[in-house]
Amino acid sequence: MSTPDINSWQSVQDEVLRRIHNRIWKPGAQIPNETDLAKEFNCGRTTVNRALRELAESGILERKRKSGTRVALHPVSRAVIAVQIVRREIEERGASYGYALIDKRVGTPPHAVTFAMELAQGEEMLHVRAVHLADGVPYALEDRWICLRTVPQARDYDFAQKSANEWLLENVPYNRATLSILATPASAFEQEYLAVPDKASILHVERATWRDKGPVTFVTISYQPGHRIISTTTS
Amino acid sequence: MSTPDINSWQSVQDEVLRRIHNRIWKPGAQIPNETDLAKEFNCGRTTVNRALRELAESGILERKRKSGTRVALHPVSRAVIAVQIVRREIEERGASYGYALIDKRVGTPPHAVTFAMELAQGEEMLHVRAVHLADGVPYALEDRWICLRTVPQARDYDFAQKSANEWLLENVPYNRATLSILATPASAFEQEYLAVPDKASILHVERATWRDKGPVTFVTISYQPGHRIISTTTS
Repeated sequence: MSTPDINSWQSVQDEVLRRIHNRIWKPGAQIPNETDLAKEFNCGRTTVNRALRELAESGILERKRKSGTRVALHPVSRAVIAVQIVRREIEERGASYGYALIDKRVGTPPHAVTFAMELAQGEEMLHVRAVHLADGVPYALEDRWICLRTVPQARDYDFAQKSANEWLLENVPYNRATLSILATPASAFEQEYLAVPDKASILHVERATWRDKGPVTFVTISYQPGHRIISTTTS
Repeated sequence: MSTPDINSWQSVQDEVLRRIHNRIWKPGAQIPNETDLAKEFNCGRTTVNRALRELAESGILERKRKSGTRVALHPVSRAVIAVQIVRREIEERGASYGYALIDKRVGTPPHAVTFAMELAQGEEMLHVRAVHLADGVPYALEDRWICLRTVPQARDYDFAQKSANEWLLENVPYNRATLSILATPASAFEQEYLAVPDKASILHVERATWRDKGPVTFVTISYQPGHRIISTTTS
Protein backbone atom coordinates (compact mmCIF):
# COMPACT_ATOMS: atom_id res chain seq x y z
CA MET A 1 0.00 0.00 0.00
CA SER A 2 1.50 3.32 -1.06
CA THR A 3 -0.41 5.42 1.48
CA PRO A 4 1.98 6.48 4.24
CA ASP A 5 1.05 5.66 7.81
CA ILE A 6 -1.41 8.16 9.18
CA ASN A 7 -1.60 8.02 12.90
CA SER A 8 -3.61 10.91 14.26
CA TRP A 9 -7.26 11.60 13.51
CA GLN A 10 -6.23 15.04 12.26
CA SER A 11 -3.99 13.56 9.59
CA VAL A 12 -6.73 11.10 8.58
CA GLN A 13 -9.06 14.08 8.26
CA ASP A 14 -6.51 16.00 6.18
CA GLU A 15 -6.11 13.05 3.81
CA VAL A 16 -9.89 12.61 3.48
CA LEU A 17 -10.28 16.33 2.72
CA ARG A 18 -7.44 16.16 0.19
CA ARG A 19 -9.21 13.35 -1.64
CA ILE A 20 -12.53 15.20 -1.65
CA HIS A 21 -10.94 18.47 -2.79
CA ASN A 22 -8.97 16.78 -5.54
CA ARG A 23 -12.10 14.91 -6.69
CA ILE A 24 -10.46 11.53 -6.04
CA TRP A 25 -13.68 11.00 -4.06
CA LYS A 26 -16.34 12.78 -6.14
CA PRO A 27 -19.51 14.55 -4.88
CA GLY A 28 -22.18 11.93 -4.20
CA ALA A 29 -19.74 9.01 -4.27
CA GLN A 30 -19.62 6.45 -1.50
CA ILE A 31 -16.31 6.32 0.37
CA PRO A 32 -14.69 3.15 1.78
CA ASN A 33 -16.02 1.97 5.13
CA GLU A 34 -14.20 2.72 8.38
CA THR A 35 -12.63 -0.74 8.66
CA ASP A 36 -11.09 -0.47 5.19
CA LEU A 37 -9.88 3.07 5.83
CA ALA A 38 -8.32 2.03 9.13
CA LYS A 39 -6.49 -0.78 7.31
CA GLU A 40 -5.32 1.55 4.55
CA PHE A 41 -4.14 4.26 6.96
CA ASN A 42 -2.71 1.72 9.39
CA CYS A 43 -4.59 3.21 12.32
CA GLY A 44 -7.46 2.28 14.63
CA ARG A 45 -11.09 2.32 13.54
CA THR A 46 -11.91 4.82 16.31
CA THR A 47 -9.32 7.20 14.82
CA VAL A 48 -11.09 7.01 11.46
CA ASN A 49 -14.43 7.47 13.15
CA ARG A 50 -13.16 10.54 15.00
CA ALA A 51 -11.83 12.01 11.74
CA LEU A 52 -15.07 11.47 9.83
CA ARG A 53 -17.46 12.61 12.57
CA GLU A 54 -16.51 16.26 12.22
CA LEU A 55 -16.68 16.16 8.43
CA ALA A 56 -20.18 14.73 8.72
CA GLU A 57 -21.15 17.40 11.24
CA SER A 58 -19.89 20.15 9.00
CA GLY A 59 -21.83 18.71 6.07
CA ILE A 60 -18.90 17.61 3.89
CA LEU A 61 -19.80 13.93 4.30
CA GLU A 62 -23.26 12.40 4.56
CA ARG A 63 -23.69 9.32 6.70
CA LYS A 64 -26.62 7.04 6.12
CA ARG A 65 -27.32 3.92 8.10
CA LYS A 66 -27.82 1.61 5.15
CA SER A 67 -25.85 3.11 2.30
CA GLY A 68 -22.68 4.05 4.17
CA THR A 69 -20.83 7.35 4.00
CA ARG A 70 -20.91 9.53 0.90
CA VAL A 71 -19.32 12.78 -0.17
CA ALA A 72 -22.11 15.35 0.14
CA LEU A 73 -23.67 16.45 -3.13
CA HIS A 74 -24.75 19.77 -1.69
CA PRO A 75 -22.36 20.63 1.06
CA VAL A 76 -23.68 23.02 3.65
CA SER A 77 -20.97 25.07 5.19
CA ARG A 78 -21.26 26.93 8.44
CA ALA A 79 -20.39 30.46 9.29
CA VAL A 80 -19.94 31.25 12.93
CA ILE A 81 -20.86 34.62 14.35
CA ALA A 82 -19.59 35.71 17.74
CA VAL A 83 -22.35 37.22 19.86
CA GLN A 84 -20.98 39.43 22.59
CA ILE A 85 -22.10 42.41 24.58
CA VAL A 86 -22.30 45.65 22.60
CA ARG A 87 -19.81 47.34 24.91
CA ARG A 88 -17.15 44.78 23.93
CA GLU A 89 -17.97 45.15 20.23
CA ILE A 90 -17.33 48.88 20.53
CA GLU A 91 -14.20 48.51 22.65
CA GLU A 92 -12.74 45.97 20.23
CA ARG A 93 -12.95 48.63 17.54
CA GLY A 94 -10.76 50.80 19.71
CA ALA A 95 -13.55 53.28 20.45
CA SER A 96 -14.58 54.56 23.86
CA TYR A 97 -17.90 53.20 25.04
CA GLY A 98 -20.88 55.27 26.06
CA TYR A 99 -24.33 54.24 27.20
CA ALA A 100 -27.63 56.04 27.78
CA LEU A 101 -30.96 54.65 28.91
CA ILE A 102 -33.83 55.94 26.79
CA ASP A 103 -36.76 54.54 28.74
CA LYS A 104 -37.86 51.67 30.96
CA ARG A 105 -41.46 50.73 31.61
CA VAL A 106 -43.78 47.79 32.06
CA GLY A 107 -46.10 47.16 29.13
CA THR A 108 -47.64 44.71 26.72
CA PRO A 109 -45.21 43.64 24.00
CA PRO A 110 -46.14 43.66 20.30
CA HIS A 111 -47.42 40.40 18.83
CA ALA A 112 -44.11 39.72 17.08
CA VAL A 113 -42.39 39.52 20.47
CA THR A 114 -45.17 37.44 22.04
CA PHE A 115 -44.97 34.94 19.17
CA ALA A 116 -41.18 34.74 19.16
CA MET A 117 -41.11 34.13 22.92
CA GLU A 118 -43.99 31.64 22.88
CA LEU A 119 -45.88 33.74 25.44
CA ALA A 120 -49.56 34.16 26.18
CA GLN A 121 -51.12 37.26 24.63
CA GLY A 122 -51.39 40.19 26.99
CA GLU A 123 -48.69 39.16 29.46
CA GLU A 124 -46.87 42.26 30.65
CA MET A 125 -43.12 42.48 30.23
CA LEU A 126 -40.45 45.02 31.07
CA HIS A 127 -39.56 47.19 28.09
CA VAL A 128 -36.09 48.76 28.15
CA ARG A 129 -34.66 50.94 25.39
CA ALA A 130 -31.14 52.30 25.33
CA VAL A 131 -28.45 53.64 23.04
CA HIS A 132 -24.85 52.40 22.91
CA LEU A 133 -22.31 54.98 21.74
CA ALA A 134 -18.86 54.68 20.20
CA ASP A 135 -16.72 57.77 20.75
CA GLY A 136 -19.88 59.71 21.56
CA VAL A 137 -21.73 58.71 18.37
CA PRO A 138 -24.75 56.35 18.40
CA TYR A 139 -23.48 52.89 17.42
CA ALA A 140 -26.50 50.69 18.13
CA LEU A 141 -29.92 50.82 19.73
CA GLU A 142 -31.14 48.18 22.15
CA ASP A 143 -34.90 47.59 22.22
CA ARG A 144 -35.56 44.87 24.74
CA TRP A 145 -38.47 43.06 26.41
CA ILE A 146 -37.72 41.13 29.60
CA CYS A 147 -40.01 38.45 31.04
CA LEU A 148 -40.96 39.44 34.59
CA ARG A 149 -42.02 35.92 35.54
CA THR A 150 -38.55 34.53 34.80
CA VAL A 151 -36.58 37.64 35.77
CA PRO A 152 -38.63 39.39 38.53
CA GLN A 153 -35.54 41.20 39.86
CA ALA A 154 -35.36 43.26 36.61
CA ARG A 155 -38.33 45.33 37.76
CA ASP A 156 -36.28 47.06 40.45
CA TYR A 157 -33.01 47.45 38.55
CA ASP A 158 -32.69 50.92 37.01
CA PHE A 159 -30.45 50.19 33.95
CA ALA A 160 -29.16 53.76 34.25
CA GLN A 161 -25.46 52.86 34.45
CA LYS A 162 -25.35 49.31 33.16
CA SER A 163 -27.22 48.14 30.06
CA ALA A 164 -29.77 45.34 30.24
CA ASN A 165 -27.51 43.66 27.66
CA GLU A 166 -24.72 43.40 30.21
CA TRP A 167 -26.84 43.02 33.34
CA LEU A 168 -28.75 40.02 31.98
CA LEU A 169 -25.61 38.26 30.82
CA GLU A 170 -24.09 38.63 34.27
CA ASN A 171 -27.20 37.68 36.22
CA VAL A 172 -29.53 35.48 34.24
CA PRO A 173 -28.15 32.40 32.52
CA TYR A 174 -30.00 30.98 29.54
CA ASN A 175 -29.81 27.65 27.82
CA ARG A 176 -31.67 28.26 24.60
CA ALA A 177 -31.31 31.11 22.17
CA THR A 178 -32.48 31.99 18.70
CA LEU A 179 -30.92 34.60 16.48
CA SER A 180 -32.28 36.25 13.37
CA ILE A 181 -30.70 38.89 11.11
CA LEU A 182 -32.71 41.18 8.85
CA ALA A 183 -32.63 44.55 7.10
CA THR A 184 -35.38 47.16 7.38
CA PRO A 185 -35.78 50.84 6.58
CA ALA A 186 -35.10 53.01 9.65
CA SER A 187 -38.14 53.32 11.95
CA ALA A 188 -39.07 56.67 13.50
CA PHE A 189 -37.35 55.55 16.73
CA GLU A 190 -34.18 54.59 14.83
CA GLN A 191 -34.21 57.79 12.78
CA GLU A 192 -34.31 59.80 15.98
CA TYR A 193 -31.83 57.93 18.16
CA LEU A 194 -29.36 56.79 15.49
CA ALA A 195 -29.69 60.23 13.85
CA VAL A 196 -30.23 58.84 10.35
CA PRO A 197 -32.52 59.84 7.46
CA ASP A 198 -35.74 57.92 6.77
CA LYS A 199 -34.27 56.18 3.73
CA ALA A 200 -31.48 54.61 5.80
CA SER A 201 -31.21 50.84 5.73
CA ILE A 202 -30.74 49.31 9.15
CA LEU A 203 -29.26 45.93 10.03
CA HIS A 204 -31.15 44.28 12.90
CA VAL A 205 -30.11 41.38 15.05
CA GLU A 206 -33.05 39.87 16.92
CA ARG A 207 -32.25 37.50 19.72
CA ALA A 208 -34.52 35.57 22.07
CA THR A 209 -33.32 33.57 25.05
CA TRP A 210 -34.91 31.05 27.41
CA ARG A 211 -33.92 29.49 30.68
CA ASP A 212 -35.39 25.98 30.62
CA LYS A 213 -39.03 26.69 29.81
CA GLY A 214 -38.99 30.25 31.04
CA PRO A 215 -38.64 33.05 28.50
CA VAL A 216 -35.85 35.41 29.50
CA THR A 217 -35.70 38.20 26.95
CA PHE A 218 -36.34 39.32 23.39
CA VAL A 219 -34.01 41.99 22.07
CA THR A 220 -33.52 43.85 18.83
CA ILE A 221 -30.14 45.47 18.33
CA SER A 222 -30.26 47.92 15.42
CA TYR A 223 -27.00 49.19 14.04
CA GLN A 224 -25.84 52.38 12.38
CA PRO A 225 -26.01 52.17 8.56
CA GLY A 226 -22.86 50.55 7.17
CA HIS A 227 -22.49 48.09 10.03
CA ARG A 228 -21.27 44.62 9.04
CA ILE A 229 -21.55 41.32 10.84
CA ILE A 230 -18.39 39.46 9.94
CA SER A 231 -17.65 35.78 10.23
CA THR A 232 -14.28 34.38 9.36
CA THR A 233 -14.68 30.92 10.81
CA THR A 234 -16.29 28.80 8.15
CA SER A 235 -16.14 25.12 7.41
CA MET B 1 -18.27 25.27 56.24
CA SER B 2 -21.16 27.70 56.49
CA THR B 3 -22.59 27.03 53.03
CA PRO B 4 -25.99 25.39 53.37
CA ASP B 5 -26.63 22.10 51.61
CA ILE B 6 -27.44 22.66 47.99
CA ASN B 7 -29.06 19.69 46.40
CA SER B 8 -30.37 20.50 42.94
CA TRP B 9 -28.23 21.59 40.01
CA GLN B 10 -30.39 24.70 39.71
CA SER B 11 -29.52 25.77 43.23
CA VAL B 12 -25.82 25.07 42.59
CA GLN B 13 -26.11 27.22 39.48
CA ASP B 14 -27.83 29.99 41.44
CA GLU B 15 -25.09 29.95 44.06
CA VAL B 16 -22.34 30.00 41.43
CA LEU B 17 -24.06 32.93 39.72
CA ARG B 18 -24.46 34.73 43.04
CA ARG B 19 -20.72 34.41 43.66
CA ILE B 20 -19.88 35.64 40.16
CA HIS B 21 -22.36 38.48 40.46
CA ASN B 22 -21.09 39.55 43.86
CA ARG B 23 -17.51 39.33 42.62
CA ILE B 24 -16.69 36.68 45.22
CA TRP B 25 -15.44 34.91 42.12
CA LYS B 26 -14.03 37.71 39.99
CA PRO B 27 -13.91 37.88 36.18
CA GLY B 28 -10.91 35.87 34.98
CA ALA B 29 -10.49 34.05 38.32
CA GLN B 30 -10.22 30.28 38.51
CA ILE B 31 -13.04 28.63 40.45
CA PRO B 32 -12.71 25.50 42.65
CA ASN B 33 -12.77 22.18 40.82
CA GLU B 34 -15.94 20.08 40.64
CA THR B 35 -14.86 17.67 43.36
CA ASP B 36 -14.25 20.50 45.82
CA LEU B 37 -17.53 22.20 44.92
CA ALA B 38 -19.44 18.93 45.35
CA LYS B 39 -17.90 18.56 48.80
CA GLU B 40 -18.72 22.15 49.74
CA PHE B 41 -22.30 21.95 48.48
CA ASN B 42 -22.76 18.44 49.82
CA CYS B 43 -24.01 17.14 46.49
CA GLY B 44 -22.82 14.82 43.75
CA ARG B 45 -20.10 15.75 41.29
CA THR B 46 -22.53 15.17 38.40
CA THR B 47 -24.86 17.79 39.92
CA VAL B 48 -22.02 20.31 39.93
CA ASN B 49 -21.11 19.32 36.40
CA ARG B 50 -24.71 19.80 35.26
CA ALA B 51 -24.82 23.24 36.87
CA LEU B 52 -21.56 24.42 35.33
CA ARG B 53 -22.13 23.00 31.86
CA GLU B 54 -24.83 25.51 31.00
CA LEU B 55 -22.86 28.41 32.39
CA ALA B 56 -19.95 27.36 30.19
CA GLU B 57 -22.24 27.02 27.18
CA SER B 58 -23.69 30.46 27.69
CA GLY B 59 -20.18 31.89 28.03
CA ILE B 60 -20.28 32.86 31.71
CA LEU B 61 -17.59 30.33 32.58
CA GLU B 62 -14.63 29.28 30.46
CA ARG B 63 -13.43 25.73 30.72
CA LYS B 64 -9.89 24.89 29.70
CA ARG B 65 -8.40 21.44 29.84
CA LYS B 66 -5.24 22.37 31.70
CA SER B 67 -6.09 25.47 33.67
CA GLY B 68 -9.52 24.45 34.95
CA THR B 69 -12.66 26.55 34.94
CA ARG B 70 -12.54 30.34 35.09
CA VAL B 71 -15.09 33.12 35.24
CA ALA B 72 -15.20 34.52 31.71
CA LEU B 73 -13.64 37.93 31.32
CA HIS B 74 -15.78 38.75 28.32
CA PRO B 75 -18.47 36.19 27.70
CA VAL B 76 -18.96 35.46 23.99
CA SER B 77 -21.57 33.12 22.62
CA ARG B 78 -21.68 31.80 19.10
CA ALA B 79 -24.42 31.68 16.52
CA VAL B 80 -24.02 29.32 13.61
CA ILE B 81 -25.41 30.11 10.17
CA ALA B 82 -25.76 27.42 7.52
CA VAL B 83 -24.43 28.53 4.15
CA GLN B 84 -25.84 26.55 1.27
CA ILE B 85 -26.61 27.06 -2.40
CA VAL B 86 -29.52 29.40 -3.12
CA ARG B 87 -31.45 26.69 -4.99
CA ARG B 88 -31.50 24.54 -1.85
CA GLU B 89 -32.57 27.50 0.30
CA ILE B 90 -35.55 28.02 -2.00
CA GLU B 91 -36.43 24.33 -2.24
CA GLU B 92 -36.31 23.96 1.54
CA ARG B 93 -39.05 26.61 1.73
CA GLY B 94 -41.16 24.35 -0.42
CA ALA B 95 -41.03 26.69 -3.42
CA SER B 96 -40.16 25.75 -6.98
CA TYR B 97 -36.78 27.02 -8.08
CA GLY B 98 -36.13 29.18 -11.11
CA TYR B 99 -32.91 30.67 -12.43
CA ALA B 100 -32.01 33.27 -15.07
CA LEU B 101 -28.61 34.54 -16.13
CA ILE B 102 -28.55 38.34 -16.40
CA ASP B 103 -25.09 38.82 -17.88
CA LYS B 104 -21.60 37.37 -18.05
CA ARG B 105 -18.52 39.29 -19.12
CA VAL B 106 -14.83 39.78 -18.38
CA GLY B 107 -14.01 43.06 -16.70
CA THR B 108 -12.15 44.89 -13.95
CA PRO B 109 -13.80 44.49 -10.55
CA PRO B 110 -14.53 47.44 -8.27
CA HIS B 111 -11.90 48.24 -5.63
CA ALA B 112 -14.03 46.73 -2.86
CA VAL B 113 -13.77 43.34 -4.57
CA THR B 114 -10.05 43.71 -5.30
CA PHE B 115 -9.36 44.55 -1.65
CA ALA B 116 -11.54 41.78 -0.25
CA MET B 117 -9.86 39.21 -2.50
CA GLU B 118 -6.34 40.52 -1.86
CA LEU B 119 -5.80 40.96 -5.61
CA ALA B 120 -3.60 43.28 -7.63
CA GLN B 121 -5.40 46.33 -8.99
CA GLY B 122 -6.53 46.00 -12.57
CA GLU B 123 -6.57 42.22 -12.76
CA GLU B 124 -9.49 41.15 -14.94
CA MET B 125 -12.06 38.76 -13.55
CA LEU B 126 -15.20 37.10 -14.84
CA HIS B 127 -18.34 38.97 -13.78
CA VAL B 128 -21.54 36.91 -13.65
CA ARG B 129 -24.93 38.25 -12.58
CA ALA B 130 -28.06 36.16 -12.20
CA VAL B 131 -31.43 36.03 -10.52
CA HIS B 132 -32.76 33.13 -8.43
CA LEU B 133 -36.55 32.79 -8.36
CA ALA B 134 -38.95 31.15 -5.91
CA ASP B 135 -42.27 30.21 -7.51
CA GLY B 136 -41.47 32.60 -10.35
CA VAL B 137 -40.76 35.60 -8.10
CA PRO B 138 -37.24 37.04 -7.67
CA TYR B 139 -35.85 35.66 -4.40
CA ALA B 140 -32.22 36.74 -4.55
CA LEU B 141 -29.67 38.28 -6.90
CA GLU B 142 -26.22 36.84 -7.38
CA ASP B 143 -23.50 39.35 -8.33
CA ARG B 144 -20.26 37.43 -8.65
CA TRP B 145 -16.63 37.93 -9.64
CA ILE B 146 -14.59 34.81 -10.45
CA CYS B 147 -10.79 34.77 -10.54
CA LEU B 148 -9.68 33.58 -13.98
CA ARG B 149 -6.20 32.65 -12.81
CA THR B 150 -7.54 30.16 -10.27
CA VAL B 151 -10.64 29.12 -12.26
CA PRO B 152 -9.68 29.45 -15.97
CA GLN B 153 -12.40 26.97 -17.01
CA ALA B 154 -15.11 29.46 -15.94
CA ARG B 155 -14.39 31.57 -19.06
CA ASP B 156 -15.93 28.95 -21.35
CA TYR B 157 -18.83 27.89 -19.16
CA ASP B 158 -22.05 29.69 -20.12
CA PHE B 159 -23.96 29.70 -16.77
CA ALA B 160 -27.21 29.69 -18.75
CA GLN B 161 -28.71 26.62 -17.09
CA LYS B 162 -26.67 26.21 -13.94
CA SER B 163 -25.79 29.11 -11.64
CA ALA B 164 -22.18 29.97 -10.87
CA ASN B 165 -23.23 29.41 -7.25
CA GLU B 166 -23.84 25.75 -7.95
CA TRP B 167 -21.20 25.23 -10.65
CA LEU B 168 -18.37 26.52 -8.45
CA LEU B 169 -19.42 24.42 -5.48
CA GLU B 170 -19.40 21.31 -7.63
CA ASN B 171 -16.21 22.05 -9.50
CA VAL B 172 -13.92 24.31 -7.51
CA PRO B 173 -13.19 23.38 -3.92
CA TYR B 174 -12.08 26.07 -1.52
CA ASN B 175 -10.46 25.91 1.87
CA ARG B 176 -10.81 29.45 3.15
CA ALA B 177 -13.89 31.63 3.21
CA THR B 178 -15.00 34.90 4.70
CA LEU B 179 -18.58 35.99 5.15
CA SER B 180 -20.01 39.41 5.86
CA ILE B 181 -23.63 40.50 6.33
CA LEU B 182 -24.84 44.05 5.80
CA ALA B 183 -27.93 46.12 4.96
CA THR B 184 -28.04 48.72 2.21
CA PRO B 185 -30.74 50.65 0.35
CA ALA B 186 -31.64 48.93 -2.94
CA SER B 187 -29.23 49.79 -5.77
CA ALA B 188 -30.55 50.55 -9.28
CA PHE B 189 -29.65 46.96 -10.26
CA GLU B 190 -31.53 45.54 -7.26
CA GLN B 191 -34.53 47.80 -7.81
CA GLU B 192 -34.80 46.53 -11.37
CA TYR B 193 -34.19 42.81 -10.88
CA LEU B 194 -35.80 42.32 -7.46
CA ALA B 195 -38.66 44.64 -8.55
CA VAL B 196 -38.51 46.78 -5.41
CA PRO B 197 -38.85 50.55 -4.77
CA ASP B 198 -35.75 52.69 -4.16
CA LYS B 199 -36.45 52.97 -0.43
CA ALA B 200 -36.30 49.21 0.01
CA SER B 201 -33.78 47.90 2.50
CA ILE B 202 -31.78 44.95 1.21
CA LEU B 203 -29.94 42.30 3.20
CA HIS B 204 -26.62 41.36 1.57
CA VAL B 205 -24.42 38.39 2.19
CA GLU B 206 -20.92 38.88 0.83
CA ARG B 207 -18.74 35.85 0.62
CA ALA B 208 -15.17 35.42 -0.59
CA THR B 209 -13.44 32.08 -1.05
CA TRP B 210 -9.86 30.98 -1.66
CA ARG B 211 -8.24 27.75 -2.68
CA ASP B 212 -4.94 27.63 -0.84
CA LYS B 213 -3.45 30.96 -1.86
CA GLY B 214 -5.53 31.40 -5.01
CA PRO B 215 -8.62 33.61 -4.88
CA VAL B 216 -11.67 31.74 -6.18
CA THR B 217 -14.63 34.08 -6.09
CA PHE B 218 -16.27 37.08 -4.48
CA VAL B 219 -20.05 37.05 -4.44
CA THR B 220 -22.82 39.27 -3.15
CA ILE B 221 -26.20 37.64 -2.66
CA SER B 222 -28.90 40.29 -2.18
CA TYR B 223 -32.26 39.18 -0.89
CA GLN B 224 -35.84 40.35 -1.31
CA PRO B 225 -36.90 42.79 1.45
CA GLY B 226 -38.11 40.90 4.50
CA HIS B 227 -35.58 38.08 4.16
CA ARG B 228 -34.16 36.76 7.43
CA ILE B 229 -31.01 34.83 8.13
CA ILE B 230 -31.88 32.56 11.01
CA SER B 231 -29.59 30.72 13.37
CA THR B 232 -30.97 28.44 16.03
CA THR B 233 -27.76 26.74 17.02
CA THR B 234 -26.12 28.93 19.58
CA SER B 235 -23.73 28.17 22.36
